[in-house]
Amino acid sequence: MCRGFKFSGVAAGLKKNGKKDLGLIYSETPAQVAGVFTRNQIKAAPVLLDMQRITSGTCQAVIVNSGNANCCTGAKGMQDAISMARWTAAKLDIQEEMVLVASTGVIGQPLAVEKIQASIPDLINTLDPDGLSALAEAIMTTDTVPKIVTRKGQLGGTAFTVTGVAKGSGMIRPDMATMLCFVMTDIAAKPALLKEMLLASTDRSLNRITVDGDTSTNDTTLLMANGQSGVVISSDADRKEFQSILDAILISLGKQLVKDGEGATKLVEIAVTGAATDADAYQIADTVAHSNLLKTALFGEDANWGRILGAVGRAGVPIQPDAIDVYFADVLMVKSGMGCGKEAEAQATQVLKQPEYTITIDLKAGKATSSVFTCDFSIDYVKINADYRS
Amino acid sequence: MCRGFKFSGVAAGLKKNGKKDLGLIYSETPAQVAGVFTRNQIKAAPVLLDMQRITSGTCQAVIVNSGNANCCTGAKGMQDAISMARWTAAKLDIQEEMVLVASTGVIGQPLAVEKIQASIPDLINTLDPDGLSALAEAIMTTDTVPKIVTRKGQLGGTAFTVTGVAKGSGMIRPDMATMLCFVMTDIAAKPALLKEMLLASTDRSLNRITVDGDTSTNDTTLLMANGQSGVVISSDADRKEFQSILDAILISLGKQLVKDGEGATKLVEIAVTGAATDADAYQIADTVAHSNLLKTALFGEDANWGRILGAVGRAGVPIQPDAIDVYFADVLMVKSGMGCGKEAEAQATQVLKQPEYTITIDLKAGKATSSVFTCDFSIDYVKINADYRS
Repeated sequence: MCRGFKFSGVAAGLKKNGKKDLGLIYSETPAQVAGVFTRNQIKAAPVLLDMQRITSGTCQAVIVNSGNANCCTGAKGMQDAISMARWTAAKLDIQEEMVLVASTGVIGQPLAVEKIQASIPDLINTLDPDGLSALAEAIMTTDTVPKIVTRKGQLGGTAFTVTGVAKGSGMIRPDMATMLCFVMTDIAAKPALLKEMLLASTDRSLNRITVDGDTSTNDTTLLMANGQSGVVISSDADRKEFQSILDAILISLGKQLVKDGEGATKLVEIAVTGAATDADAYQIADTVAHSNLLKTALFGEDANWGRILGAVGRAGVPIQPDAIDVYFADVLMVKSGMGCGKEAEAQATQVLKQPEYTITIDLKAGKATSSVFTCDFSIDYVKINADYRS
Repeated sequence: MCRGFKFSGVAAGLKKNGKKDLGLIYSETPAQVAGVFTRNQIKAAPVLLDMQRITSGTCQAVIVNSGNANCCTGAKGMQDAISMARWTAAKLDIQEEMVLVASTGVIGQPLAVEKIQASIPDLINTLDPDGLSALAEAIMTTDTVPKIVTRKGQLGGTAFTVTGVAKGSGMIRPDMATMLCFVMTDIAAKPALLKEMLLASTDRSLNRITVDGDTSTNDTTLLMANGQSGVVISSDADRKEFQSILDAILISLGKQLVKDGEGATKLVEIAVTGAATDADAYQIADTVAHSNLLKTALFGEDANWGRILGAVGRAGVPIQPDAIDVYFADVLMVKSGMGCGKEAEAQATQVLKQPEYTITIDLKAGKATSSVFTCDFSIDYVKINADYRS
């Protein structure tokens, strides 16, 4: 779909359940590339490798495995990541440095790299322009559905495509690319501009989501642009057009991640309005979105708005408690810091039965706004994470 | 047990299940008093009232209800808190301003204050020097056991007593007195000194615990000293002796709160050693203690140490990833940032089956240390909080 890109995904035997666990992205021609990586100081070997290699601004392939994070694995871990790239490059007949690597899964266990080596020929033989689904499956961990989105644009009469794939679904919090996410496009742009646009979109999307507040050691978001559409991003107008599509791609993927968050049954936007500053709005949205008490109430479909005010009050932002309004969708539940009574609550409870809705907190202190997407906190989240490694 | 103090607890009908929900602390003579209150900007009416009244440095009674937080209840809420104190004072024949008030329970619902008024005579008639258990029961919300501790000391040949009672067990994080906690003693000390000692002990105890990371709107810790033992704290040596007993009281209550945290099956100390500064050590202990991924793994008795390193790495403190050691009790599980293998893991898993243990994280960056007490995150936590108001 995205000109010049091919994808594949196979089962190399890293996952105990026999599902796909090894994926490949390949561009027929070298692509410009930009990336953002986890801010966690504990970084997996492939993250450290990519952070070095991406400084060249070009790459042609990305090999990704799930089932093992290759993190806290010492010198062997780094050697394994390098080997993954080397074997892939050799079979593709491209330079070793043109291959990036990503891993996701359990931390601290040695990677069965011989299984990866054995599967690389199959991985390359099955490369396909329509192979995105196989790739999306191969990078899943506790995800229940693959996450893919494609958008088309036009510039100067020429069509271009942007397509993205991502995985979640635990260890997700808004702190720069808390997942694996790969975006491919057939436009061309300088790596520095790609990076700028990727950071701008990330800040509006992947950094505005949370599942459980933990930050991964392996987070990697890559944007590859191979120029095969003939569209070159240069003017401000071009840039604006591409940025809006990139925003849409990453917002869609971000929402897909939260919706499929571990154990999640609800996708909830926490929207803060009427803040004095953007930073205030974000700080409050972020605090409310992380409140375990609120998230369990959302799971229970209980309009327990006191927990929202409780979280607002501890966010570290000066507030006027008796000014705050809270809406569940368009139902006014809290007016000037006090509940609106049983009828409002009955209506709010209906909103909470929906799979997706917005909770709006109006601080009445200014004009700044911010949103964070969160999910509910369910019994299944605990079950999934109590038994994750067994 | 604590000279000159009497306690009582009755069922006023605020709790739907008919259990005790109204308690009273009474000192036969006016007591010096100090308090610490929630840092949450959304403060319940009784908190706002107490913060005014405690500036006098004396009080003689505290009336406490559970089943309703009297928070986000507007002008009526404040009037209700004042009325609770006024009715109590009238029946006890003491000044209205000598009565403090505390409430705990659901936020944002009007207080059935007429039920409290009707129960005050009974509450006063049942006051008893041995009534601490009744009081401890009356302040419980989702707590499964009452929390009481008593210690005796001696100064200048005279014995004195310190006794404390507290309730949890959700909306608990280390941010200044995240619960109701009342400490009574028969020593005498100036209110300013009491405050200083209370803050010092709180910082080593109640501010070092977490259940779910949410901060209550009603947190109140009071220290009442009525001087009836004849012991007056004046010298540094006296102060040191009393402080150590107060520390022990509040650490005991803090641990009792976490152990009985909502749904908790484990009491776990997260101890950070080898940090460059106390603040670094605390920041890391606090971040690890709040990791939902770690807390669910503790529930699952899974020695998933990668989640510990993941949390250490996102704590915002500079670290050397390949220097870190992690112990489960005395089992070395992570050495220099890497796992110690299957045998260590088998031993660590045995530790995790215990109801109480310590996880030690050695940063090897200095000599500072800090601890935070946390609990596991269980299916029951979600069940309790999904259905809290129903």
